[in-house]
Amino acid sequence: MPLTTSFLQPLLAATAAESVNLAEAGPLILAAVLLSLVVIYFASKVGGEICARINFPPVLGELVGGVVVGISVLHLLVFSEGGPTEPSVLTTFIQQTAGMDGTVASVVANTASEVISVLSEIGVMILLFEIGLESDLEGLLKVGPQAAVVAVVGVVAPFVAGTFGLVTLFHVDLVPAIFAGAALTATSIGITAKVLAEIQRLTSPEGQIIIGAAVLDDILGIIVLAVVASLAKTGTVEISNVIYLIISSVVFLVGSVVVGRLLSPFFLGMVDRLTTRGNLLIPSLIFAFVLGYVAVILQLEAILGAFTAGLVLGETEKRRELEEQILPIADMLVPVFFVCVGARTDISVLNPLEPANRAGLIIASFLVLVAIVGKVVTGATVFGQPRINRWAIGIGMVPRGEVGLIFAAVGSASGVLSKALDAGIIVMVIVTTFVAPPLLRLVFKPETEALPTSDVAVESPPEG
Amino acid sequence: MPLTTSFLQPLLAATAAESVNLAEAGPLILAAVLLSLVVIYFASKVGGEICARINFPPVLGELVGGVVVGISVLHLLVFSEGGPTEPSVLTTFIQQTAGMDGTVASVVANTASEVISVLSEIGVMILLFEIGLESDLEGLLKVGPQAAVVAVVGVVAPFVAGTFGLVTLFHVDLVPAIFAGAALTATSIGITAKVLAEIQRLTSPEGQIIIGAAVLDDILGIIVLAVVASLAKTGTVEISNVIYLIISSVVFLVGSVVVGRLLSPFFLGMVDRLTTRGNLLIPSLIFAFVLGYVAVILQLEAILGAFTAGLVLGETEKRRELEEQILPIADMLVPVFFVCVGARTDISVLNPLEPANRAGLIIASFLVLVAIVGKVVTGATVFGQPRINRWAIGIGMVPRGEVGLIFAAVGSASGVLSKALDAGIIVMVIVTTFVAPPLLRLVFKPETEALPTSDVAVESPPEG
Repeated sequence: MPLTTSFLQPLLAATAAESVNLAEAGPLILAAVLLSLVVIYFASKVGGEICARINFPPVLGELVGGVVVGISVLHLLVFSEGGPTEPSVLTTFIQQTAGMDGTVASVVANTASEVISVLSEIGVMILLFEIGLESDLEGLLKVGPQAAVVAVVGVVAPFVAGTFGLVTLFHVDLVPAIFAGAALTATSIGITAKVLAEIQRLTSPEGQIIIGAAVLDDILGIIVLAVVASLAKTGTVEISNVIYLIISSVVFLVGSVVVGRLLSPFFLGMVDRLTTRGNLLIPSLIFAFVLGYVAVILQLEAILGAFTAGLVLGETEKRRELEEQILPIADMLVPVFFVCVGARTDISVLNPLEPANRAGLIIASFLVLVAIVGKVVTGATVFGQPRINRWAIGIGMVPRGEVGLIFAAVGSASGVLSKALDAGIIVMVIVTTFVAPPLLRLVFKPETEALPTSDVAVESPPEG
Repeated sequence: MPLTTSFLQPLLAATAAESVNLAEAGPLILAAVLLSLVVIYFASKVGGEICARINFPPVLGELVGGVVVGISVLHLLVFSEGGPTEPSVLTTFIQQTAGMDGTVASVVANTASEVISVLSEIGVMILLFEIGLESDLEGLLKVGPQAAVVAVVGVVAPFVAGTFGLVTLFHVDLVPAIFAGAALTATSIGITAKVLAEIQRLTSPEGQIIIGAAVLDDILGIIVLAVVASLAKTGTVEISNVIYLIISSVVFLVGSVVVGRLLSPFFLGMVDRLTTRGNLLIPSLIFAFVLGYVAVILQLEAILGAFTAGLVLGETEKRRELEEQILPIADMLVPVFFVCVGARTDISVLNPLEPANRAGLIIASFLVLVAIVGKVVTGATVFGQPRINRWAIGIGMVPRGEVGLIFAAVGSASGVLSKALDAGIIVMVIVTTFVAPPLLRLVFKPETEALPTSDVAVESPPEG
């Protein structure tokens, strides 16, 4: 195509592929998705099983498995994220086995990677729905004040310490310092909740405070991100947008729980009258997906909607039955999320032999320190609970996970961050994400053996 | 964008959307997928429940529900299928609620519809995997000769009668007549299998013959499609391609069953050693998806791979456990397939008030007649089974479903079909697909009440 500029080529390939009829193009996209899922499942199982054997949380293994198959090592699973990328090893493989030409292959690969992205997002929604089902709304409300303090301190402490330290110690300009400080405020509810479920501490008082605080942090994170993104873009903060986000998140959370509880007798009555397969599952998924949609439209996150739906349905008598049905669905979709988080993480910034990384690594050490200390201190703020495991709460707030990656992506896109600072943020996200699961398991360890909890999510026991 | 031609606009919008960072574009695609799933689930439950109440097969309701939300009526769920389309009602709704501009909205909608397409294809794979699990390999092999005769007669009879009738009665040219005749040969394994499972006759002798014949028909259909597509394109038949397809499908089916049975002790041993969640499900899905991928690469269909994987795993001691875990996953994904088949079907060609449709409807009446009679006669060919329900077998082969739609799509794309013939094929697909489920239920009815089968798939019983 000599008449078109190079950036148009994949797009023209898209028309070419679209004009190919359904019977020809569809199967190739499906084939690419199937192969990606095989790679994801393989990575999640190998990583998870190795971690389980050395007494680490399986979810850590899924993340590491994702890193191995992703952008950092094997390039089997690569997401374009907007920029032009090298074709992944998987694309090349599909292209050769299916005998496609290069442009069609790249369209197929891009579409397949979009599908995998959405599957991973549905996966984390299913995870949060499951966590919501297993959480206890009364218990969450009871620890609400403590969770709120933990959440707020966990945002303010690392933000202030990070921004101040970058400006005074590293002479970073104020706007990028604020941005980096903001990236320190995130908490990955997915990773913490998964670890808590794995060690069966989700419904412990510590678990409930962590989940409550992580949910609030998710909202605070969205607000902080909106503020700093507008600061980075325009140099000013749109107060009206901040107020909108605060009001909409409060209205959404309170509203969906209240309305959900009001409607749940109607819901149960309807479920009982349905006679076809999926009579409980499908209405529940409709509820979760509607709330997820509303959350996205309000510029919140879909996982908040899924979590709230789970919370409301967890209050009903159908809870156990629904938990059983969600289990295999979660087993199928949740690993997609964790492997994708790992696959998206570029660990090449961790290589100290690369001279360009060194400035970033020095800043990173500082950010990691602030990130961990700034969240661990939140454990000390829990009041009125003398026997609570404060270390567990503090450490439960540490992983930045996928939320941190979003901050890093927005930071890269905005252009306010220097290369060193950008790398430093990514390193901070990696270290906090990978260090928290084993630490969390460690601080919960003594109690786990002494005190079996009663009302917790039970892992599907492997048979035989 | 005044400088670009209009067909490039959605593509340029694609770059615009892709350059938007992950945190902004990703959620909108997710939101569109979530809303589409809500529409799909709603349609499937409303349709399915109504059909269950008037004693029709629920799957018919899912198809009709799909028609209602699809291209024919409400335009909520529209697939682009290569050509430029009107924005769906859903796209407009998302655009307004999320405040996107039109071009971004169309990119988001296209991506979401690709995701839904892939989900529906994974849905039918899960259905065939479930059917394979519940089928009995020994039983299938035992009725193999009968199934082979049914399959071959069910391809030859409607093909010869259809082609001959079109040439002699309607004076259609030979190539388009052969194409339309070929479209008559398809059998929708998905729809028949689903109805058989719903009435719990999947493992009856009739059910096994139908499934065996439908699987063989799927392969014959692929070969026939390859032949007529090449005939339509080049006017000649590539014998080498036909031989390749025959050999590859035989090698694939026999090979995957033989290799699968050889490897299954190793598979079970590995499953028993896994300790993390999904220890049985994930390796099983890897198996099904790998076989699905191989099938696509061999130019066969992914559902054949999934079916074979289910068949092999159904022979192992893990069958029951796996069936239980697949059930909710099937409940979640299978309706996506049936609703999408309905949504893709344009029933406007059925409107006799539209003068342009009349020629098509006359041809269609002939095609429907041949389509039904040509398959029903196959019941008479079953030998060595004196007490078999021959009507049930014949009717079980009638629905063309998604396979017929693919023939119609390839026919449209090839350009050899006249508008009337094209419409006639679509009407034939619609009528056979929608008529077969209630008929199948009817002919099985007397026995269902008299003779409860023992070893069949049990519907998840609605509680309360």
